[in-house]
Amino acid sequence: MPRYKLTVEYDGTPYVGWQRQKNGRGVQTAIEEAIARFCQEDITMQVAGRTDAGVHGLGQVCHADLTKDWPEKTVRDAINSYLLQNGEPVSIMSAEKVTEEFHARFSAKARHYRYRIINQETPVALARNRGWWVRRHLDEKAMHDAAQNLLGTHDFTTFRAAQCQAQSPVKTLDKLDVARQGSDIFFEVYARSFLHNQVRSMVGALKLVGESKWSSDDLVAALEAKDHQRCGALAPSCGLYLTQVDYD
Amino acid sequence: MPRYKLTVEYDGTPYVGWQRQKNGRGVQTAIEEAIARFCQEDITMQVAGRTDAGVHGLGQVCHADLTKDWPEKTVRDAINSYLLQNGEPVSIMSAEKVTEEFHARFSAKARHYRYRIINQETPVALARNRGWWVRRHLDEKAMHDAAQNLLGTHDFTTFRAAQCQAQSPVKTLDKLDVARQGSDIFFEVYARSFLHNQVRSMVGALKLVGESKWSSDDLVAALEAKDHQRCGALAPSCGLYLTQVDYD
Repeated sequence: MPRYKLTVEYDGTPYVGWQRQKNGRGVQTAIEEAIARFCQEDITMQVAGRTDAGVHGLGQVCHADLTKDWPEKTVRDAINSYLLQNGEPVSIMSAEKVTEEFHARFSAKARHYRYRIINQETPVALARNRGWWVRRHLDEKAMHDAAQNLLGTHDFTTFRAAQCQAQSPVKTLDKLDVARQGSDIFFEVYARSFLHNQVRSMVGALKLVGESKWSSDDLVAALEAKDHQRCGALAPSCGLYLTQVDYD
Repeated sequence: MPRYKLTVEYDGTPYVGWQRQKNGRGVQTAIEEAIARFCQEDITMQVAGRTDAGVHGLGQVCHADLTKDWPEKTVRDAINSYLLQNGEPVSIMSAEKVTEEFHARFSAKARHYRYRIINQETPVALARNRGWWVRRHLDEKAMHDAAQNLLGTHDFTTFRAAQCQAQSPVKTLDKLDVARQGSDIFFEVYARSFLHNQVRSMVGALKLVGESKWSSDDLVAALEAKDHQRCGALAPSCGLYLTQVDYD
């Protein structure tokens, strides 16, 4: 059975997350339904990163095994055609045939996330649900400097959701850059893998640094406490984008 | 009565246009309702450019006469607060006290519009309703060069909607630049004023040039025909943004 690697962009707003839940549709469901209409196959895809409700995908990766050996562009365009017909804000950016050694989740070498804060006095209109609106001016340099303390290998229990299923809270964070572009503040983050809610928890804590409510030392103390109660606040999902997944 | 100049950003998607219509709510209605909740005044605003259904505002300007002399930031923040409560994707970027000589429509010296084409093979997900998805590759240089023939003073009947209420079809176009940024093609346009649907009609015709279906001479012939049947096609409203209105 040929395996296809799909790179996907989606607006997470109308979905309960990547996966289906009892309370609603997932992005995965939208794509699997389109595949079923395209080739009458009832498949279950595997994914690099199971994003939560409201989180967006810019370069999410999943894989699907189809019975027939379709040309790559046919797979891409046919799935997109049914997604469009159904009004789903989901788009297959590319479909590539891969060997059966490829696994969207287990072959991934790194995940890249972006978080967007919209830092302006007035509410967001056109970019609603595309970033976290923060009214009070944030010091992005202080946030960036403090963030560097989180790089490297740590027990990230403080920045881990209660429902996180990872076996170990120890992760290695390779990049956490914070930079302003006009009224936007972007966090560019990557690691081999993350704990559940780790990026949103780190952004929530760094926002406290940007407001001068926390010092850089407070952030380090929170990390070292290994206590989820010390995480500060969880940044809302609408500002988070899974931008890229790296493979060999 | 103090007069306030309001600069407004909005997502035009859920509205029937700036003005209320029999078939639905206008952006104007959303703001006037917020003003009524803020200061219990039933007012009618005047606007620089009455945008159509689905057209977005980045720098729309309107004015409102209030009975009480409120501080500018109070007006801005109070209206925004009620807009947010009501879930309207509309934001007052600034409120400025102006003299009663100021009129949002009649004092305007120029209107600036932007049109966005998203020129990529795959459908748009995150930017849905924020641009016109055109799948076939467009030659933006050919479009820009042809567009320069539209500059200056012309009878723009070809690019005028049947329902246009302007007294004369003669307008002076000061700028129509076309440039690519990655998969986006932006049209930057300004003039003292425009006919109804003029920007969308010009973009629709220029897209034919970008596809090599029309030559630059075809565009000039269409303009000179002064015949609305020759306009080519109307670009969809979701790609159009009123970006700025100039005053003395």
